[in-house]
Amino acid sequence: MTSHDAHARAQRAATDPTTPSAPATPAAADGTVTDHESTAAATPAPGWHKGYLSGSRPDLRVPVRRVHLTDGRHVTLYDTSGPYTDPQVATDVRGGLEPLRSGWIAERGDTEEYPGRAPRPEDDGVRRTAPGGGLDTLDAVFPGGPRQPRRGRGGAAVTQLAYARRGVITPEMEYVAVRESVEPEFVREEIATGRAVLPANVNHPESEPMAIGRNFLVKVNANIGNSAVTSSIEEEVEKMTWATRWGADTVMDLSTGRNIHTTREWVLRNSPVPIGTVPLYQALEKVGGKAEELSWEVYRDTVVEQAEQGVDYMTVHAGVLLRYVPLTARRKTGIVSRGGSIMAAWCLAHHQESFLYTHFEELCEILRAYDITYSLGDGLRPGSIADANDEAQFAELRTLGELTRVARSMDVQTMVEGPGHVPMHKIKENIDLQQEICDGAPFYTLGPLTTDIAPGYDYITSGIGAAMIGWWGTAMLCYVTPKEHLGLPDRDDVKTGVITYKIAAHAADLAKGHPGAQAWDDALSDARFEFRWEDQFNLALDPDTARAFHDETLPAEPAKTAHFCSMCGPKFCSMKISRDINERFGGGVNATPEEIEAGMLEKSQEFAASGNRVYLPLAD
Amino acid sequence: MTSHDAHARAQRAATDPTTPSAPATPAAADGTVTDHESTAAATPAPGWHKGYLSGSRPDLRVPVRRVHLTDGRHVTLYDTSGPYTDPQVATDVRGGLEPLRSGWIAERGDTEEYPGRAPRPEDDGVRRTAPGGGLDTLDAVFPGGPRQPRRGRGGAAVTQLAYARRGVITPEMEYVAVRESVEPEFVREEIATGRAVLPANVNHPESEPMAIGRNFLVKVNANIGNSAVTSSIEEEVEKMTWATRWGADTVMDLSTGRNIHTTREWVLRNSPVPIGTVPLYQALEKVGGKAEELSWEVYRDTVVEQAEQGVDYMTVHAGVLLRYVPLTARRKTGIVSRGGSIMAAWCLAHHQESFLYTHFEELCEILRAYDITYSLGDGLRPGSIADANDEAQFAELRTLGELTRVARSMDVQTMVEGPGHVPMHKIKENIDLQQEICDGAPFYTLGPLTTDIAPGYDYITSGIGAAMIGWWGTAMLCYVTPKEHLGLPDRDDVKTGVITYKIAAHAADLAKGHPGAQAWDDALSDARFEFRWEDQFNLALDPDTARAFHDETLPAEPAKTAHFCSMCGPKFCSMKISRDINERFGGGVNATPEEIEAGMLEKSQEFAASGNRVYLPLAD
Repeated sequence: MTSHDAHARAQRAATDPTTPSAPATPAAADGTVTDHESTAAATPAPGWHKGYLSGSRPDLRVPVRRVHLTDGRHVTLYDTSGPYTDPQVATDVRGGLEPLRSGWIAERGDTEEYPGRAPRPEDDGVRRTAPGGGLDTLDAVFPGGPRQPRRGRGGAAVTQLAYARRGVITPEMEYVAVRESVEPEFVREEIATGRAVLPANVNHPESEPMAIGRNFLVKVNANIGNSAVTSSIEEEVEKMTWATRWGADTVMDLSTGRNIHTTREWVLRNSPVPIGTVPLYQALEKVGGKAEELSWEVYRDTVVEQAEQGVDYMTVHAGVLLRYVPLTARRKTGIVSRGGSIMAAWCLAHHQESFLYTHFEELCEILRAYDITYSLGDGLRPGSIADANDEAQFAELRTLGELTRVARSMDVQTMVEGPGHVPMHKIKENIDLQQEICDGAPFYTLGPLTTDIAPGYDYITSGIGAAMIGWWGTAMLCYVTPKEHLGLPDRDDVKTGVITYKIAAHAADLAKGHPGAQAWDDALSDARFEFRWEDQFNLALDPDTARAFHDETLPAEPAKTAHFCSMCGPKFCSMKISRDINERFGGGVNATPEEIEAGMLEKSQEFAASGNRVYLPLAD
Repeated sequence: MTSHDAHARAQRAATDPTTPSAPATPAAADGTVTDHESTAAATPAPGWHKGYLSGSRPDLRVPVRRVHLTDGRHVTLYDTSGPYTDPQVATDVRGGLEPLRSGWIAERGDTEEYPGRAPRPEDDGVRRTAPGGGLDTLDAVFPGGPRQPRRGRGGAAVTQLAYARRGVITPEMEYVAVRESVEPEFVREEIATGRAVLPANVNHPESEPMAIGRNFLVKVNANIGNSAVTSSIEEEVEKMTWATRWGADTVMDLSTGRNIHTTREWVLRNSPVPIGTVPLYQALEKVGGKAEELSWEVYRDTVVEQAEQGVDYMTVHAGVLLRYVPLTARRKTGIVSRGGSIMAAWCLAHHQESFLYTHFEELCEILRAYDITYSLGDGLRPGSIADANDEAQFAELRTLGELTRVARSMDVQTMVEGPGHVPMHKIKENIDLQQEICDGAPFYTLGPLTTDIAPGYDYITSGIGAAMIGWWGTAMLCYVTPKEHLGLPDRDDVKTGVITYKIAAHAADLAKGHPGAQAWDDALSDARFEFRWEDQFNLALDPDTARAFHDETLPAEPAKTAHFCSMCGPKFCSMKISRDINERFGGGVNATPEEIEAGMLEKSQEFAASGNRVYLPLAD
């Protein structure tokens, strides 16, 4: 049994009864989804209990994860896993999740249903492997067909930003307030100033509202998505539910392979978290992968297609300007952003400014009618340590600042993406500059990776940078998995990436002094000090792995209640000695501060009286 | 195939032909070492070639790892793996390594051989599991018996510090200079001021000299060691060679179980890196695990025993003073250092000051006669986020500063240990205070862990803190494995811990602007940009895992020369577009800066002439 085997075993153990591993079935091979119940099921770990906090209205119930402790108390944690971890809720991926926000959207009275854009064969991408280059058929459509889409009546801005600016506290904002233990007015204020976003497309009413902003808990995004080479719809839906089970706050579907439209429909209808995309990827598929054949028309059509499906935020690489492209020529690794290189190729081919930049206001008009949040892409982010913080990167950032102001002026919620590969001493400049240039808009970074030398371990090289940039004010961290630079992440890579980034985000919350963040650490450390092994496991970010690792050395059941561990053995134990000290000086582990003071004083006087040469009074 | 399975598979694939996994044989169960050749064999990865740099004398050959690239060039890396990775050298764990420093030690003429302390049955620990508490037999002694020990003639200080202060550049110092690409005089100066140490017991002539100091590359220590519960001699020797293969600069043997003395002998005779210990652990075994029965006499005897074997540095918890113990009573997790809690228990039981403190000068006299380096232990380090940077911790640190000055005044090399569990915003205070209080003595920290919530992933929670504190000046990072808090690390945990800490150390070297550090990143990024997959794998910290991850998605051999990867597929590739841009503006990837400038200027003028509305000249 190796540690990695144990990881894998623990991961399987957590889901085997209900969730077969994704890729094996023939159904997956042709893109259909078969074993629906099991695919989305993500049962809670032992000791995890779904709870709900209530708000000012009966339809506002905010989910939390309650970890029940062996002493009868419980610890309440932020919960992103959706209804899947609530045994009271029957979920079925064929039916999708309950549209919990539908009533709130409808009661605002500023949206209207409309027939929507007619689906086209190319929406699902060109089947490149088919003989003769023929088009794919939609062989796995979401049952019941698409819901009638909704948009702002007469192009009205139906964004949380528009409401916040008008002084309205929406149910979504109150939901976030309960979730983050802050006042609803605080949430409104953060959104109104643009320091936070609340991504919530009116066509994704299934999503549980959450906020991204430096004054809230640091959030984590997990990327999923098939590619031309590998992966299936079933796998992608499974990765989404799996990622949220471990704490992903949002999920980006970056599919570029077959069934793009259909995969996204399945993901959206089953996602309790906001879904982000890069519409450019699908647009590129529609023109056969030839960047120079892209046009504003194809792009706009794709944005509308995705808007009607319910995509909550979109990465738009509108900052890649024609004149910035030559700045990348002397780089070590050129342009590594896929979106950035597509737009650079287009600019060069046409010798024109990017259509994303020239049509930016028109794009704002579309996004605000659905409340889609901008994630302004960093198309020129550095792809190596050598290229960090160079002129190409910061030139684009200045343009993103300009675009942030345009978007805000049109009531579109906006966050800004950041790098990439950055050595530690150059990280802080990134967040400081972004906050200054983009007027405090939320920063959303990929890592950054703090060295290039460890392919296979870039979840770690980047987890270091992510924790630091989170501490300094980055609002959301896009995860990196062990497969970065090498291949597409599978289910276990997704888990490893999410757990690593939850560590980074929580370490950042602690360092920022976020109220309440340390309570989790304290509860776990209490359990550790008091040898409450089961509580220590259940409070862990990943209880399965913690339990499996412990059991490798001391598998027997009594060992989980033993007052020692395998590091020191049964006879000598530093924790035990500490408890003795605590009892000696403090009247026991449950002593009040006053009792401890009294105990210490007594001992102090005793020592002073002893006249020992090396002794100095406690007050020293 | 999961990512963790792949990790494990890659690890096995690298060694299966020569290295069976450790614990299975019956021989291991009774503590003997059988399959000697295979145990220590740690063959190089494909593409890794052993090389040697020469110094001013023929017996000074400094090993390096040369990574041969497909374009005929090579990259030279620091190499800790010893003769095991040199196919020209036949190694046999029964014979141990060649004593490469013997001549240097002898020619100084200031040491003498002497009969040495007679071995005692209790040296190997009490066999607690034996009926009636009987003593263990020495059933696996190192073949040929112990070498005659050596020490400073008449108690002379035969330390690198003493030589450096006298202006002598020893072969050991020159070796370090070649290894670190600095001048020998610089090494001497750093050691003379106490800013660096060069741990090199005269009885461990097999070790390859290395330096620990803030002006050298950041070093990594790996802990090994059996416990009363589990593990064997064979496993520990195997873990040592395994750890150095992946880059561990020193190894600490923290054994507390059976065969302590014998395990250490095997480890030392076969170790190319300095070995550290905590003599207190063995002393405690000698008194049956009862802290209150410890005495200066038992401790001193143990230090001499280990000194004669060749231990290069010793953790001494002499800063745990009686008056500090009550300061820990109100902590969340009390005293978590095993050494700290042993000494606290002793102080409380005797109501006297620690014998390590009261006999510190006597201890210095022993250590300097063998050139053993102090690692002043942080017995009161915080064991939880809640306890970080508290009065108990910093009170002890002030005492360690006092002891550093005492040790230096007696020519004993000294480094100082640090925490532990520290949230990010409190890390810098640790290194700044230590450097100030301890007059720049090298800091050697365990992590620190930046949150308590992720048992099973503490290599990551601590890798974050380690990278940061390394950047800020910590000289050596003690690794943490996935099993921290849960169990004893196995072979794969050791590898994961070492790789994670090599990442942290290298990220720190980059951030410190260490000369030459970035060349490795640049070489790997070049290989990545130019789709030289094999070079990318071989330059990776862990080539096996990088290769295995790539092969999961694109297993065929042609894929390793393909100009695309599985993330984007064969049709569209951002790297390819970047190369096009490079060729367009820069005259190809091998263009000179002048050619690139010329290309950019031409394009710039072309754009300006086009009169496009959004266009601005490049000089903007």
